[in-house]
Formats: sequence, structure tokens, C-alpha cells
Amino acid sequence: MLELFYAAHTCALASHIALEEAGADYRIVRVDFSSDGQRKPEYLAINPKGRVPALVTQRGILTETPAILAFVAQTYPGARLAPLDDPFAFAGVQAFNSYLCSTVHVAHAHRMRGSRWVDDPAAIAAMQRKVPQSVGECFGLIEREMLAGPWVMGSAYTICDPYLFTLAQWLDGDGVDIARFPKVRDHRQRMSERAAVRTAIAAELA
Amino acid sequence: MLELFYAAHTCALASHIALEEAGADYRIVRVDFSSDGQRKPEYLAINPKGRVPALVTQRGILTETPAILAFVAQTYPGARLAPLDDPFAFAGVQAFNSYLCSTVHVAHAHRMRGSRWVDDPAAIAAMQRKVPQSVGECFGLIEREMLAGPWVMGSAYTICDPYLFTLAQWLDGDGVDIARFPKVRDHRQRMSERAAVRTAIAAELA
Repeated sequence: MLELFYAAHTCALASHIALEEAGADYRIVRVDFSSDGQRKPEYLAINPKGRVPALVTQRGILTETPAILAFVAQTYPGARLAPLDDPFAFAGVQAFNSYLCSTVHVAHAHRMRGSRWVDDPAAIAAMQRKVPQSVGECFGLIEREMLAGPWVMGSAYTICDPYLFTLAQWLDGDGVDIARFPKVRDHRQRMSERAAVRTAIAAELA
Repeated sequence: MLELFYAAHTCALASHIALEEAGADYRIVRVDFSSDGQRKPEYLAINPKGRVPALVTQRGILTETPAILAFVAQTYPGARLAPLDDPFAFAGVQAFNSYLCSTVHVAHAHRMRGSRWVDDPAAIAAMQRKVPQSVGECFGLIEREMLAGPWVMGSAYTICDPYLFTLAQWLDGDGVDIARFPKVRDHRQRMSERAAVRTAIAAELA
């Protein structure tokens, strides 16, 4: 059985939803961020980066959301979560997810995780002030250029969808009004109605 | 023929080396960062993000280094640049590349691209001061936990290798002494002796 190490309200939700959509045999294991559980030796033995998600498989441990999402899609091809037989289309899926991890998530992280990149409290506060703008610009680009609709890649639901949904959950906290992005807003609503999404969120908050 | 839009001294080098290793039919097209060419309408029509690399294919345009690298590996399977038939091993490759794009490149970017995340000049200076530490910590983790040797994934050369090499080129400018990381240092040296790497670097600087 697969084990997904997660914390609520983190990007681990994307992998969780994908496992649920795939019909995988898995269970989730909570990492308690409130007591800094991600930095304890027991967890660092699983993921030396001290981050979530981490997926424990029979072969070993996988980290990084885009890698886990592609692994789920390839391991459960019957769920049709990515265009596995078309390298160009698969690269499009991966490019979207790579943008989310390297640019969108990073812009968001400057609100709560600024100490990764700076020590000065005034600089951390200055970073936080720019988050609505930087995150807003990312979602502006997604709205204009990337989200084909009704799903990210068009008519086919893929591993891009749970990942976008997960990051779009953070917009309110980031001070970005989702109403500026009608396609993103409709996507988030559409996702929130899926059984797999409801199941995953309920399990994380239980 | 594939066209790779690049600028010298950027992460586009990783995709360039991979194309060369794969024996692909491609040419490179320079984007002039010194005149802000990446923000001109002609280039934004190719990549609305205003970044490099961008790979123009017969099917359309691809962006984001991890996606382009996996595309090259899948499109030229004879070059054996990734474990394409093993989803777990392929996910390991992708996890490494995802870490490079979302954490290592981002730490580095706080030296020259701080205005992405903050406006205050004092905060930008404070960010720059932490780059040696944050980039150093990333490479410490790579040294201890990730670089199997002689190549990143062990005995097989993969798309992880040109990407690590590319980011390791920046260590000196980031104020990090590569001698602290003997495996990374040896990897960089080993890479610099490969014909594909020499060809790609010479072409970019020509």
C-alpha cells in the first residue's frame, strides 16, 4: 500500500486528489507542522528536505509534487490522468505543473516562508506586501494563456487539475480576489464538486 | 527542425546539452537579455512568461526546463537519457529536476531577480546576502542525499546531469565554494569534459 505523508493546507493535496482519482490503494499520514514535525529526525529520515508531500512506495520514497503526479498517472494508466503515449502533450502537462511548482508556489511562499530567502524582519514584511501582486500576475497568466477549459488541458481531466485547484485554494489568503480570474474561479468550483476532491479534503481535515 | 530559444548563462543550457546529447536536429536562437529581449512582443508571442528556455517544435512550443528535458528523453529514446519504461525510476529523475527548478534555481534567483518578490531596495540587498547560505544548503543536500555518482542517478547518465551541471556553474557567482561539495565538484568536472557539453557551451558563447 502507498503512504502519502501530508499536512493540511499544503500542496500535498494535489497528490492526494490524484491518488484518489486513480483509485490507488493508499493511506495518508499526517505530519504535524504546528509542532515542526517536518523537521524531526523521524520525518527527515523519510524526506531529508523536511517538506511534504512524500510518497512511500514498495520501491522507495518519492518527493516533489510534479514527480509524484506523473508517477500516479503512469502507474494507473487506466485512470487516464495524463496523455502518456504522446511526448509532446505529456510535456505540456509537465510544463504546466513545473510552472506551478517553480513560479506560482514560490510566489505564494513569500508570504509565510520568507525566512527561506532572507533574515531581516523588515525584508520579510516587504516580501509579504508584494505577494498579492506576484501571485496575481501568475494567475493572470494562467487565466489568459494556460487554462484551456473546462479542464486545464481542455476536454481531458489531467494531473494538472488537482494541482491548479490546490494552489487556487490559497488565493484568498494571498490577498488575491479570484473573481478577477473567471476561468480559474469556475475551475475551482468545478473541482470542488468532484467526489475525489471532496473525499481528499474531508480526510485531510478529519 | 527544433528551435531552442536561449540566453547565455541561463538554465536554457540544460536543454541545449540534452538536445546535443540526443543527436536532435535543432538550432539555437539567442534572446538578448541585455536589451530586455525576453520582454519584447516578438518573444512574448513565443513564451508569454518572458523567460528562457522555449523549444519550438512542429506541434507547438514547450517551456520549463524539466518538461523540455523529459520531452527530449522521450522523443529520442535511443539516446537513453531517462529510464522511460520504469515509472518509479522516471519519477526519481523528475523529482531531482523538480527540486532543481523549484528550490535550487529559486534560491539562486534571489541574487539577481529579487524584484520578482519584493520592491524595497534594502530588502533586495538583504535577499542577496542570504544567497550563499540558501544555495549552499541546497547543494549540501544534493551532495549528501541525491548525487549517487558518477552521474546523478548512478551509473546511467540522464537528463538530471546537464541540469545539475548548469546550476553548479552558478556557484562561484553565488558566493558558494564548490570545494565544500566534492561529489558536485567532480560531477561538474566530469560533465565539462563531455563533447556535448563543450559543443553547447561553445555555441552559446560564440
